Parts: sequence; C-alpha cells; structure tokens
Amino acid sequence: MSKPLILVTNDDGITAPGLRHLIRYMKEIGDVVVVAPDSPQSGMGHAITLDNTLYSKKVVIDQKDGAPEEYSCSGTPADCVKLALQELLPKKPDICVSGINHGSNASINVIYSGTMSAAIEAGIEGVPAIGFSLCDYSWEANFSPAETAIKQITREALRNGMPRGVVLNVNIPKTEAGGIRGVKVCRQARANWKEKFDKRTNPMGKDYYWLTGEFELLDKGEDTDEWALSQGYVAVVPTQFDLTAHHFIQDVNNWILNE
Amino acid sequence: MSKPLILVTNDDGITAPGLRHLIRYMKEIGDVVVVAPDSPQSGMGHAITLDNTLYSKKVVIDQKDGAPEEYSCSGTPADCVKLALQELLPKKPDICVSGINHGSNASINVIYSGTMSAAIEAGIEGVPAIGFSLCDYSWEANFSPAETAIKQITREALRNGMPRGVVLNVNIPKTEAGGIRGVKVCRQARANWKEKFDKRTNPMGKDYYWLTGEFELLDKGEDTDEWALSQGYVAVVPTQFDLTAHHFIQDVNNWILNE
Repeated sequence: MSKPLILVTNDDGITAPGLRHLIRYMKEIGDVVVVAPDSPQSGMGHAITLDNTLYSKKVVIDQKDGAPEEYSCSGTPADCVKLALQELLPKKPDICVSGINHGSNASINVIYSGTMSAAIEAGIEGVPAIGFSLCDYSWEANFSPAETAIKQITREALRNGMPRGVVLNVNIPKTEAGGIRGVKVCRQARANWKEKFDKRTNPMGKDYYWLTGEFELLDKGEDTDEWALSQGYVAVVPTQFDLTAHHFIQDVNNWILNE
Repeated sequence: MSKPLILVTNDDGITAPGLRHLIRYMKEIGDVVVVAPDSPQSGMGHAITLDNTLYSKKVVIDQKDGAPEEYSCSGTPADCVKLALQELLPKKPDICVSGINHGSNASINVIYSGTMSAAIEAGIEGVPAIGFSLCDYSWEANFSPAETAIKQITREALRNGMPRGVVLNVNIPKTEAGGIRGVKVCRQARANWKEKFDKRTNPMGKDYYWLTGEFELLDKGEDTDEWALSQGYVAVVPTQFDLTAHHFIQDVNNWILNE
C-alpha cells in the first residue's frame, strides 16, 4: 500500500518550530508536502486574499529534517490550503494537518485561529483535516511531550476517516515529558476575551491602541476542551463549518417576518 | 421608553453605500453609533489585529443622512466591534447590525465573511447581532427593495431577543422594487468554491497568482439559504459560534486514542 499524502501547513509561518516538529512527526506516517505562510498569520481567522497578489516559491528550510517538497506562500493559511490543493500538490492529499500552533486554539479561540482556518478550508474541500495547538505561546516551547498523541490522532483519523463537514481541533496542554495524562474528546467551552485596549500616543501626537485582553471562561462543564486541558489531557474537539443554529430555527419562525 | 442603542458596522468600509443605507434604516429604529473600517475588509474572515496598532477617529461622512456619532477604525470588522464595545460606546448596545454587504454571505461564504465576523464578535460579547448582505457585488447596487425586510427583521430581533450564542445571517436577493417575495428562515446550504488560480508573471519576471473561483452548490435542500434566495426570498440563517460537531463526538470516542 502506498503511503498517505499529507499536506502540512500552519499560521505561525514556515520557519516556526511548531511546524518543523509537525513535519518530522508526519514524515513517519506518510509523504509530506508543506505549503505554509512566509510570515506569521496569527489572528487571521478565515481570511483569504481577494484584492492582492499571491506569491509562492519552493524553499528548503531544513536540509535534514524538512520535507522533500516545501513551498512558502505570501497569503493567509486558508490561501495556502487553496493553493496547495489547486496548484501545488500532485493529487488530493489523504489528510491536512495544521500547526503545531504556538498557543491555545481551544474554546472561543477557534474563531480567531489561522491554524484552524487552514484545517477548516481543507475540510470544506473534502480533505480530512486536523489543527494541532500547544498551549504555550513561547517560540521555544517544548513540543516533545505532544509527539505521541499527535501521531496517534493522525493515524486514527487516517484509519477511521472523517465525515464530510467535520475537522478536528486538537489542543495540547503545556507539560514536561510524561506529563500528558491522555486524550479526551470534548466540546468547545463557552468563553470570551475581555478586551483591554492599551491607549497610547505616537511620536506625532496621534492616539492609537494596542488590543490586549484576558481570557474569560464562562463554562464549568467537565466535557469541555478547557476542562480537559486544565486536567492535563489533550483535548480533541470535532469541529464543523455548518454554522446553522438548528435549535433556534423554530423560534425565528415564530417571529413576525412576513405580513 | 428610551430608544434602543444600535451599533452599525460593516466590512466594505465606512464610505460604502450599503453601510450608508443601513444607517438610514436604523435611524428610524433607534440611536445609531457607527464604528466601521476605514478601508474595505472583504474576505477578512474573523481576523483581529494582534501585532499592529489600531487607529480610530471620529468622522463625518454624510452631514444629512449620517449618524450623530461615527468612528472609522484602521482594523478589521472584529476589531471595530471590540473597540466599539470596550472604548467608544457610552453603554452596551441593544443590537449590533453589520452590512449591508455588497455581495452574498450565504452558505459557505459565512466562513470568509468580514460582515458576519463583526456580527459574531458582537454575539460572543453577548450583544444580539445581525449581518445583512445583498447578493449584488456592485458598488451601485439597488438596496431599496431590501429596506422593509431589514427594518422588520431588526425590530423583531429587538422585540423577541436572541439567546446567547446565536446571531442572524441575513441575505437578500438582488431584485427590483417589489421583487422580494418574503422572508424565510433557513439553514446554511452546503457548498464550496472551486478555486481557479490565475497565474501571471510580474514585470520583474516573478510568477504570482490571483485567487478566483466558481461557487459550487452541493445541496439541493429546499430549506437552505441558497434555495430561498433563488426563489426571491430573503434568507435568515440563525448562526452559532459553538463549532462543536456534537454528532461526531461519540464516533471519535471509539477511536484508539489512549493505550
């Protein structure tokens, strides 16, 4: 049997340590092609490049541990996946993995996540996909404790397949070697960010803001990704891009919308 | 009873005709404050500005038909809502309306939509929210046939309230006066974009791409937004930001993820 074709991408950029680790893990599972942004794209959500040109070039980032084929792209993570599927890959990949993100994409962060937008874009195009994130924002984060879980989840996704319309959002707690207690399948916790705008004045006398904020967990459920992470588990959330709130359709049907 | 406070925003920018129409309609319903991007932000998805400064200033775009208070902002639609709620509004608004977008945000377009990202951001922060889009990309689109439906949907949302976690995605067919057949509550149609990359060479001899594509409807259901629009109805889709694919949790629990 031929090895699976694996598309690897991320939102921190093609030189990010998280991506370089993911490439090494995936090379043990299949044939890897990398298409990743040439610069960091955190917080890009599901942005795509409509009004601007896209550049892409074949690159060698790491002679020894890199993939045989790597492309950097000037666009967003969603652009990278579109370009990979349409122009750069020899055939449809068996799976797309995105990450390993430097920082959490659990709970409401999934909405802002470039890592997950790449996975969702692949899912929209009918490719099974997983986003991996480590809950450690440091560029020098320790990815090794996550290796076993990442490979196992990827192998199981390939073995079991995934229904159209679903991708996986996998978050990994920050731990030392041996610190991961296991893997839990979860739902997305209810949460938001309490914004704080840091208002400053530039050298020309003009006011500007930095967006900062504090994460506010609004959900005490023990079936959530945030709970699993707090207990030392890897959190796997099946994630969909049908955003319909089916449970609320009947209520709106009772509104007076047609005379 | 005091008039409701209405936050108006969009993704096409503060001078876009669709926004200017929406402001006029909302002034009949409540007290309007506008916080909108200073430049077009289409396709920005749920991007937020993390690594850059945000500028905002009070502006007057239209002395006669504008809102008493309008702010332009250098950020994305989601940034605008965050800044409005945290810094610019005197109190929490009763509703946030986003649009009227020049172009469809029905079916899978909701994922890429800056218009809907503003509505979703408001929803995350506990503010009832509606994104309005007209299925006509032209800057000179005829918004008038949509006026009655937009005001009625907004009034009903204010009167009935909306549960936390749900916002509305409203798409309006392109029609002449009197051409709208009514309002239908729908689910998001399954669809994707078949990308085509237009590959060119720049004057310096370097290859680049333009992202183009064709919309591909994969869903023949007569309960979808695309179907309603095709029949001349305004399509209202209750939209959520809990992306958990609850129906797939049990399947993934059967995968071998823990030894």
